[in-house]
Amino acid sequence: MAQKSANISQSQPRNIIIMVGDGMGPAYTSAYRYYKNNPETEEVEQTVFDRLLVGMASTYPAKESGYVTDSAASATALSTGVKSYNGAISVDVNKRKLTTLLEKAKSAGLATGVAVSSQVNHATPAAFLSHNESRKNYVEIAQSYLNTDADVILGGGQRYFSPELISQFTAKGYQHITEFEQLDSVTTPKVLGLFADVQLPWVIDNPDAKHLSTLTKKALSLLNQNPNGFVLLVEGSLIDWAGHSNDIATAMAELDEFAHTIEVVEQFVRQHKDTLMVVTADHNTGGLSVGANDEYAWNPEVLHRVKASPEAIAAQAIASEEWQKIVTDLLGFEPNIQQFSQLTNARMQGNKTLAIALRKIIDTYSNTGWTTLGHTGEDVQVFATGPGAKLFSGHQDNTDIANKIFSLLPKNQ
Amino acid sequence: MAQKSANISQSQPRNIIIMVGDGMGPAYTSAYRYYKNNPETEEVEQTVFDRLLVGMASTYPAKESGYVTDSAASATALSTGVKSYNGAISVDVNKRKLTTLLEKAKSAGLATGVAVSSQVNHATPAAFLSHNESRKNYVEIAQSYLNTDADVILGGGQRYFSPELISQFTAKGYQHITEFEQLDSVTTPKVLGLFADVQLPWVIDNPDAKHLSTLTKKALSLLNQNPNGFVLLVEGSLIDWAGHSNDIATAMAELDEFAHTIEVVEQFVRQHKDTLMVVTADHNTGGLSVGANDEYAWNPEVLHRVKASPEAIAAQAIASEEWQKIVTDLLGFEPNIQQFSQLTNARMQGNKTLAIALRKIIDTYSNTGWTTLGHTGEDVQVFATGPGAKLFSGHQDNTDIANKIFSLLPKNQ
Ligand SMILES: [Zn+2]
Ligand SMILES: [Zn+2]
Repeated sequence: MAQKSANISQSQPRNIIIMVGDGMGPAYTSAYRYYKNNPETEEVEQTVFDRLLVGMASTYPAKESGYVTDSAASATALSTGVKSYNGAISVDVNKRKLTTLLEKAKSAGLATGVAVSSQVNHATPAAFLSHNESRKNYVEIAQSYLNTDADVILGGGQRYFSPELISQFTAKGYQHITEFEQLDSVTTPKVLGLFADVQLPWVIDNPDAKHLSTLTKKALSLLNQNPNGFVLLVEGSLIDWAGHSNDIATAMAELDEFAHTIEVVEQFVRQHKDTLMVVTADHNTGGLSVGANDEYAWNPEVLHRVKASPEAIAAQAIASEEWQKIVTDLLGFEPNIQQFSQLTNARMQGNKTLAIALRKIIDTYSNTGWTTLGHTGEDVQVFATGPGAKLFSGHQDNTDIANKIFSLLPKNQ
Repeated sequence: MAQKSANISQSQPRNIIIMVGDGMGPAYTSAYRYYKNNPETEEVEQTVFDRLLVGMASTYPAKESGYVTDSAASATALSTGVKSYNGAISVDVNKRKLTTLLEKAKSAGLATGVAVSSQVNHATPAAFLSHNESRKNYVEIAQSYLNTDADVILGGGQRYFSPELISQFTAKGYQHITEFEQLDSVTTPKVLGLFADVQLPWVIDNPDAKHLSTLTKKALSLLNQNPNGFVLLVEGSLIDWAGHSNDIATAMAELDEFAHTIEVVEQFVRQHKDTLMVVTADHNTGGLSVGANDEYAWNPEVLHRVKASPEAIAAQAIASEEWQKIVTDLLGFEPNIQQFSQLTNARMQGNKTLAIALRKIIDTYSNTGWTTLGHTGEDVQVFATGPGAKLFSGHQDNTDIANKIFSLLPKNQ
């Protein structure tokens, strides 16, 4: 018997943390290594991704949606172990509800939570907490969270939670907060923390904010109060959003905060050895490549000079006559005459066009490639440590990741 | 002592086969899974790559060459365990010779060989067999092979081997052959087989030829005659060449033949359990993405209709007045009016331009993305089976692959 329980404690975790870098295909983590590399040293330093890599996963959705997944179908696969159509929130191809990881955890007596940088009712957290035939039904999804009994819900999305819905949450015992400063006042579950109207602000525009890592730290300390253990979903949601805009400077800053968040969780795993962490991506976004345009080079140094998101630079540049100086200051380098003439034209067409033109200039200097404003179908990486981590070695499908995690949950009482 | 030798036999292989898919980044093996998928079945079938995946590897060259490697620097890393500059053939950044895997194997009494689909003196095989300050010194490199004592040299490259050089090889006991049919007549090492002027013909233009897998089968049977074991390098060289042309139909056919070749080696490993195989890529080529153009789709069915390389289609179309019918027949689908008008213009500019236009049409129908005619810096995958395979799990650098293989070689006498 002693033997048996020792085996269980070695292979069966008490706590499970699944972390999703939305859109974080292999090109992102390779790019990140070179972005973080200290050019003063001879060595290229390893990243947290290098330290934790164990395998890869295919991400294709149910057959009717082809080979390229959206975040909803992929999160459904990761949460339920079943392939569904693009847009599905933990329902199958016949729109029947599928049991989610967090539901299984709840019925096994574990605490559950989500901490994300998008709105909390965005596709990935939604597929872990809820069911809906469409990811677009944001208000329905927010409403449905009332019945999840989740202990921790942290992220953005104020606009989807009406005062009436908020009061239903507080009636159920949730503390409702809207400012990062209020996190200290939350010392026990449950909590509904909505820190932005929709998504959290870009990290590149708030480099000291440490948004996702702060939320994750708080989620870990609250969930860890449950003696039976917990399951937590963490999503670096905005890596994907930056990818959709083909915005490399913003993507690298989001990825950096996600990497910090992984380090926070890794530290928790070191201190709580009965904890498994599994990190993956739901798909690749943008067709990013590390180098482009027939040149054998990628120049991440340029990205460290950029002081604000192209979106924010465009907004400031449109509001001022001194826009050329503003652009030069905030890009951290001076566009050439031809590029300034392109920017002049773009600026007359407004914010969005100017931001696109700025991103193209950053791509040119960094020699970054993109093929789409959507997703692509390359396999993603799987990173893991803690009891059970070896299960995730080598190749697997994204549905296998869920089924492996299920096999590690305590059996229902 | 019995214990010790049992440990050695479990962990130390007698034979080592290292296989390089030139340019075969992760997008290629993902694409290949969907290319090979049987659309009649509900499941997506696994490929040999899925079965054998164990880890990934970074590929950056020595600092002076930035973050994006060429095949020479990467092959030098894989063969010697040392980073060098782009263009280096197993010399360091100071152009000093580095000991290669095949040299180490030779001095440990093993047989050695290379089987490739490029010319045998191309960058990758050259860095395993020889040393040169530049990959471009093809004649020097071919000449240097005389002194390698390699047992098997199979691939293309007749133009680099003068009659005089050939007679020097035969004086050293090499059989010299130039036709696949002559392979049967070779029953013992040594052999110098040069089956094409430069590289072997495209697989897509010779679907039944099984070039690389045939050469590899022969290499295995010859090298396996050495009682001490052997080290063999196999390269699917032309995946990269197709990638440089952004030619997805040709790339998938080359990758298919490389996959068949891996299966040949996998079969050998099953029958000779003291054999380790390690498969990787030297870098990614073309910035390939599985899906592009803002659409969530990739349509590999189109690629199965294409009956010849765009190069070959262009040559036939330029030689005939009936070119529109030829193009439709060989593409396997009919371009639309606008595309035919683009092809008409391209045809007037000659073979190369027409081939490019044909590739663009195939990209459009298959929804394939590319960002460069060169290489990109994403990490590549590592696949392995046999004694020692576990060493290659997780993340590593390409130089680590060489150093791990070195640790598995028998110590010099
Ligand atoms: Zn997305
Ligand atoms: Zn190449």
